[in-house]
Amino acid sequence: MSDDIRLTPIGRIRTPYRTLAECPKWPDPEGPPARIELLEAYLPGLLGLTQRMGETSGEIDVLYWFDRAPRDLLISTRPHDGITRGVFAMRSPHRPNPIAVSRVPLLSIDGNVLTVGALDCLDGTLLLDIKPAPRDEPHPH
Amino acid sequence: MSDDIRLTPIGRIRTPYRTLAECPKWPDPEGPPARIELLEAYLPGLLGLTQRMGETSGEIDVLYWFDRAPRDLLISTRPHDGITRGVFAMRSPHRPNPIAVSRVPLLSIDGNVLTVGALDCLDGTLLLDIKPAPRDEPHPH
Repeated sequence: MSDDIRLTPIGRIRTPYRTLAECPKWPDPEGPPARIELLEAYLPGLLGLTQRMGETSGEIDVLYWFDRAPRDLLISTRPHDGITRGVFAMRSPHRPNPIAVSRVPLLSIDGNVLTVGALDCLDGTLLLDIKPAPRDEPHPH
Repeated sequence: MSDDIRLTPIGRIRTPYRTLAECPKWPDPEGPPARIELLEAYLPGLLGLTQRMGETSGEIDVLYWFDRAPRDLLISTRPHDGITRGVFAMRSPHRPNPIAVSRVPLLSIDGNVLTVGALDCLDGTLLLDIKPAPRDEPHPH
C-alpha cells in the first residue's frame, strides 16, 4: 500500500505543558486556553472563518501531530483506569497515525494567532489542519 | 519546520463512487453505508471497540486521505453555492493536509471489515485512522 503520504506542518500549538507528564489526558473544557500560531504563509486560509463561526457552533476541529507517540502499538492499557483495548477503540495518542482531532471553541483571532479552548498537547506541537465544525443538518463536509 | 511526517495507510474505504463527480459534497446521513476494510495486520486494534460503542453514541471518527485534492490552494470557491472562503473556514478536501474527518455510526463489525454510515469519498480511498467518538463529559481524548 502506498507509503507516499507526507504531511506539511502549518503552524504550532502553544500550551502551558512542557512535559508529557504535565499534559492532561484529554482536552479539559475547564482548562486554560491554547494558542494556535499559524505560519504566516497560510494566513489567507483563515478568510471568512469568523463569518462561518457565526453560522455554526463557534467551534473548530484542530488536527495536530503527536510526534512522540509510539506508532507500533495496536493494543494499549490506559494508565488512568487500567482498561486494555485496541488503539482504534481509544482516542489515545498511541496509534499507527498519531493524528489528534479535538473540537474546541474558537475564542478569538488576531492575525495568524487563534485563541481556542484548552488542548491536551505539549507546547510547540505541530499543527496539521483547522476545520470549522460541521453544520448540524445536513452534515456538510 | 519539520517535513518528516509520514502517514501509513491502514486500509481502504469502499463506497459506490468511482469518479469525483459521483461523490456527494459531504457525507449524507441518508446515503448508502460505506465499508471500511482494515488491513489484516491492524486487526488487534479493534479489540474492545464494540464494548466502547455501547458506552457512547455508537459513532466513530473516520480519518481518510483525499489523495487527489490540490494542496496548494488557500482560498477556494465552493461549487455548490459559490461562496469564496479560506480553506480553514471550509471542510473542503482542498487544503494543505487533505485529511478528512467524518463522524459516522458504526453499523457492524465482521472481522477486519466495518460497515459504517455513508461517506463522501471515492471507492478505494486510503484509511488513516479510526477513533471512537468522544464521551460526552468530560471530553475524553
